[in-house]
Amino acid sequence: MLIVMHHSATDEQVQAVTNAVEIMGLTAEPIPGSLRTAIGVLGNQGYVDDTTIRELPGVREVIHVSKPYKLVSRDFHPDSSIVEAAGVKFGDGQPPVIIAGPCSVESEVQMLSAARLVKENGAQMLRGGAFKPRTGPHSFQGLGVEGLKYLRQAGDAEGLPVITEVMRIEQIETICRYADVLQVGARNMQNFDLLKEVGKSGHPILLKRGLSATIEEFLSAAEYILSEGNPRVILCERGIRTFEKATRNTLDLSVVPLIREMSHLPIVVDPSHATGKRSLVGPMAKAAIVVGAHGIMIEVHPNPDQALCDGAQSLNGEDFSKLVAELARLQNFLVSV
Amino acid sequence: MLIVMHHSATDEQVQAVTNAVEIMGLTAEPIPGSLRTAIGVLGNQGYVDDTTIRELPGVREVIHVSKPYKLVSRDFHPDSSIVEAAGVKFGDGQPPVIIAGPCSVESEVQMLSAARLVKENGAQMLRGGAFKPRTGPHSFQGLGVEGLKYLRQAGDAEGLPVITEVMRIEQIETICRYADVLQVGARNMQNFDLLKEVGKSGHPILLKRGLSATIEEFLSAAEYILSEGNPRVILCERGIRTFEKATRNTLDLSVVPLIREMSHLPIVVDPSHATGKRSLVGPMAKAAIVVGAHGIMIEVHPNPDQALCDGAQSLNGEDFSKLVAELARLQNFLVSV
Amino acid sequence: MLIVMHHSATDEQVQAVTNAVEIMGLTAEPIPGSLRTAIGVLGNQGYVDDTTIRELPGVREVIHVSKPYKLVSRDFHPDSSIVEAAGVKFGDGQPPVIIAGPCSVESEVQMLSAARLVKENGAQMLRGGAFKPRTGPHSFQGLGVEGLKYLRQAGDAEGLPVITEVMRIEQIETICRYADVLQVGARNMQNFDLLKEVGKSGHPILLKRGLSATIEEFLSAAEYILSEGNPRVILCERGIRTFEKATRNTLDLSVVPLIREMSHLPIVVDPSHATGKRSLVGPMAKAAIVVGAHGIMIEVHPNPDQALCDGAQSLNGEDFSKLVAELARLQNFLVSV
Amino acid sequence: MLIVMHHSATDEQVQAVTNAVEIMGLTAEPIPGSLRTAIGVLGNQGYVDDTTIRELPGVREVIHVSKPYKLVSRDFHPDSSIVEAAGVKFGDGQPPVIIAGPCSVESEVQMLSAARLVKENGAQMLRGGAFKPRTGPHSFQGLGVEGLKYLRQAGDAEGLPVITEVMRIEQIETICRYADVLQVGARNMQNFDLLKEVGKSGHPILLKRGLSATIEEFLSAAEYILSEGNPRVILCERGIRTFEKATRNTLDLSVVPLIREMSHLPIVVDPSHATGKRSLVGPMAKAAIVVGAHGIMIEVHPNPDQALCDGAQSLNGEDFSKLVAELARLQNFLVSV
Repeated sequence: MLIVMHHSATDEQVQAVTNAVEIMGLTAEPIPGSLRTAIGVLGNQGYVDDTTIRELPGVREVIHVSKPYKLVSRDFHPDSSIVEAAGVKFGDGQPPVIIAGPCSVESEVQMLSAARLVKENGAQMLRGGAFKPRTGPHSFQGLGVEGLKYLRQAGDAEGLPVITEVMRIEQIETICRYADVLQVGARNMQNFDLLKEVGKSGHPILLKRGLSATIEEFLSAAEYILSEGNPRVILCERGIRTFEKATRNTLDLSVVPLIREMSHLPIVVDPSHATGKRSLVGPMAKAAIVVGAHGIMIEVHPNPDQALCDGAQSLNGEDFSKLVAELARLQNFLVSV
Repeated sequence: MLIVMHHSATDEQVQAVTNAVEIMGLTAEPIPGSLRTAIGVLGNQGYVDDTTIRELPGVREVIHVSKPYKLVSRDFHPDSSIVEAAGVKFGDGQPPVIIAGPCSVESEVQMLSAARLVKENGAQMLRGGAFKPRTGPHSFQGLGVEGLKYLRQAGDAEGLPVITEVMRIEQIETICRYADVLQVGARNMQNFDLLKEVGKSGHPILLKRGLSATIEEFLSAAEYILSEGNPRVILCERGIRTFEKATRNTLDLSVVPLIREMSHLPIVVDPSHATGKRSLVGPMAKAAIVVGAHGIMIEVHPNPDQALCDGAQSLNGEDFSKLVAELARLQNFLVSV
Repeated sequence: MLIVMHHSATDEQVQAVTNAVEIMGLTAEPIPGSLRTAIGVLGNQGYVDDTTIRELPGVREVIHVSKPYKLVSRDFHPDSSIVEAAGVKFGDGQPPVIIAGPCSVESEVQMLSAARLVKENGAQMLRGGAFKPRTGPHSFQGLGVEGLKYLRQAGDAEGLPVITEVMRIEQIETICRYADVLQVGARNMQNFDLLKEVGKSGHPILLKRGLSATIEEFLSAAEYILSEGNPRVILCERGIRTFEKATRNTLDLSVVPLIREMSHLPIVVDPSHATGKRSLVGPMAKAAIVVGAHGIMIEVHPNPDQALCDGAQSLNGEDFSKLVAELARLQNFLVSV
Repeated sequence: MLIVMHHSATDEQVQAVTNAVEIMGLTAEPIPGSLRTAIGVLGNQGYVDDTTIRELPGVREVIHVSKPYKLVSRDFHPDSSIVEAAGVKFGDGQPPVIIAGPCSVESEVQMLSAARLVKENGAQMLRGGAFKPRTGPHSFQGLGVEGLKYLRQAGDAEGLPVITEVMRIEQIETICRYADVLQVGARNMQNFDLLKEVGKSGHPILLKRGLSATIEEFLSAAEYILSEGNPRVILCERGIRTFEKATRNTLDLSVVPLIREMSHLPIVVDPSHATGKRSLVGPMAKAAIVVGAHGIMIEVHPNPDQALCDGAQSLNGEDFSKLVAELARLQNFLVSV
């Protein structure tokens, strides 16, 4: 931590800050400059709460050097983690995992048909929402436990592990019975109680980046899960909210190589929710592979024009088949060079 | 709903869209223009899901006219609502309610002292967090139920109703026993299950705007609560996330008169969390009164420099006393002219 | 400047950074910590370019303490500046200046009528655009020099100083002949050549904050003007671009008290462009006064429904008259308490 | 244009709006709905100014169907444009153009060395800034005309066309003498006078997207240039400003396939300025190729650690050489499949 004093701070003010730091059990090292004095704070084992410092007289700014996360940081865990879920592996040295399926579980028939379609075309994991977060209460909210059953049944029929979203703590136990991976959605990325509880579950977690979460907040949210003893976290970039409305969100692909530098956890990309537009899904999926994503999550629907949600961004079987083939060729090319 | 066709859309494509609209039980009214055709959709009683339309061949854009909320809308409920909580009234024609207290409940002594301080200086409601949402898991997380007891006890000692944040569904019942108003925080504004459950509780709810929530999403979140039969919702603007980092968030005061036009619900402003900086709290609190806020929520701590959270934005007793007096004079001035 | 090393940086890497700093003529002061080493940089007289440091092996982050502006900073110029333009004074201790008039100069008759209208109702300065920045080339672009003449004539007829926007360097000389204050618009806030040239003109400048300019960039833009020897700069907050589209922009009122802390320059607020909505102009203008703005800029049109630009946000004479009276009473109240 | 009336609008209000539309020479077509009336506006040949409509009593919203650009739109110009500059072609069916060179022209020696370096490693065009936009006035501002000479000389020595930024109108003529392509930078994207003048120059223009420009504003800016009779415009995505500060800006790659749908103009990507971080340049450059960029603009410096600007994002010769080889292999792969 570095404490920057005002140009006009008095010696007494510098001394008072020094004292306050030492009361916290830390060491203060004044660094006099030509324009102003700064005070280095030493001895901390991690992020320091600056509450008692920031508003002392003469203090202009407090700059943090330590970050509010550690377990997820590559700084303290240099080797990349491989996260395994029902035999499927996410991480360095593994081919990118294709997760596919409809936005919502709508019926037994729809799920069986979707599972067959994505399996035949090369997906390694089946997605489908049984509990749906919808902006307004008057939209379709998902089939609930019945949906979980259809999802599991469809996954089993095709030999695909399944992933589905958990929205409330009471659902965790039930969902763990049906699903191989629990998804925490963007809107819940800072639902800290949910994070702790999915941490306790021990199940693999796919954690989506919040709509306006910084990378630091994203990694801190993952830290909540790891802090409960669950290291099996897969991060997921799915677009951030910006001023631009021509796409639903802005897919921030630069986060992929950056997070691979900052953290040892695997990261996947969801181009369907990010763009909200079918014609952009393919190009952005391929770009995600190129920047190093460990997986891609794609919405596929046997009949997108009749989907109960997000039809506009869902691929049909034919488009999906074509895209998976392209992704596979691209991946082969990338590992061959 | 208006469906805008591409410049080059064929008559067959226009016809196919018309058919799709009529299959939905609605009426399609083509509006041929000099550059392109648009198709008006009539007969809907509310927001229409555009899933089956948006990606039909020849469709360029779908424009929604109906909004995904109705119960909260002034359009359908022209009279302003007054929300009462333990005798304190929020709404048009009422003096703005001053809600004050520390960010976190830290101890029995701290809360009693805070309650006395805010009561003596003119607050009508006491705030204090027992369950705290913190970005990282290594920060102070609140005292929990013990904190609720200290809060209630302090409120009772001074005759102040109390408000505290609820973060998970299982807490609702307990918190309802101790608190007069339940706060749903910004990070949970789209935790839809929590919204439904606080809706069922029947307790007055203060709903904070999410960090990157549009006004439409904010009102839709409130719609979740009203849809469960609970009309006692107080909205709260607390700053949005923008590119500007000189303040913690950007307090969007224009939302106050705008929401007063769009909705019948009362709206209060939290300048402490929005700015994150003590010196800005007073000016922004006064501005909030001037634009028509029905209340102000302010962090006050008997000893801000020793607060366990958000000390940098908390006022001490003296500053708070001065501010409340200024707000009261300002309010008197405003109603007198 | 503080250079933060990686956790795993070697002694050789720390030494190499130290050497690089000393080659720059500065002093390096290593601050060994329990988790990592940081290196304080001393001896700089201002902002240091970190180009040669940031990517040296072992460097995690470079943190700047000095800011890229100095002349505009209150740190080095503690007394508030009063900027005078044709007898009208902007700054501490002066009543807020009301600048009013139409978005565009449309005709001689319109300007004379507008000038009379705003003068009668208490404005101290007349605005009107002769050169208009418009998003698309097919919109009305302003009357040019003819517009300047109408503006000057109207100002003279009513004894009002006039302000108008300058968009290109060649216009400066001409505009200086007709106008008392030159406005640099939001889109040109980082048109650095224009800034330098208006700096050389010596004329008072009203500098609008860019749509996505941080406060630091805003002050740095003003620094360009002051660097050319022109201290007569009035800052103007006019809304920033955010994800929210219910208002045209988001008026960031907290910038007013914050800039008053950081700089000695006066700051005014333009609620008309910020909100884009007539019903919000009055509330936000009053709020601006309350947070300490040194002036308010308001669009007024004798007949808003026939305005050639921005009619939707323009007040008519009656509304303006009412608002000015309210602002005056509010101001009287504020100075009396 | 569609005019949406309030739920409670009276027949008289609907009639008044209808009249206002007809006064504009357009046709109004009321569309009565079950909840409210909308009024379709027909007969317009392009974007309609809604000034006289938006604030009429009873009007809730005005929705535009036509866009403020037409010449740049694929809707009216279905065939993709190829823009040629000194023999280098940008557009569909052409291999992506590699533009490379230092941020700033610093000296004759540096430019000759940079030109050789980028030529040897496969670049087709040389970049280098002679006039530099810098946030603060105390940073290096470029060598000016001397820099132009070094740039031209270096380009000629290696047989590379050159591109450089124009910041003010008076520079256009001079720069046209030295450079093959004129760059309009992000800060000047809405410097409309500059756009018009570079339009008149007839020279090929590379137009960078503004820091907070929507796609619609970006295309409208290009429309300014085309409106002056200059169709040789190359668009350039270079990152937008968001809340995320871990990268300098957020590179919005989804804009590439989207603009290819919306416009016939070629689009290139600048990953160096967007990310501001050397290690991210390569991954994002490759991703840009994959999503269909017609070119890549990369900062290369013979000795990045001594660059006068943006060294932290510049590649050295070795890294650049490796990247170009990778891009070429990737491009070969893409066209072969």
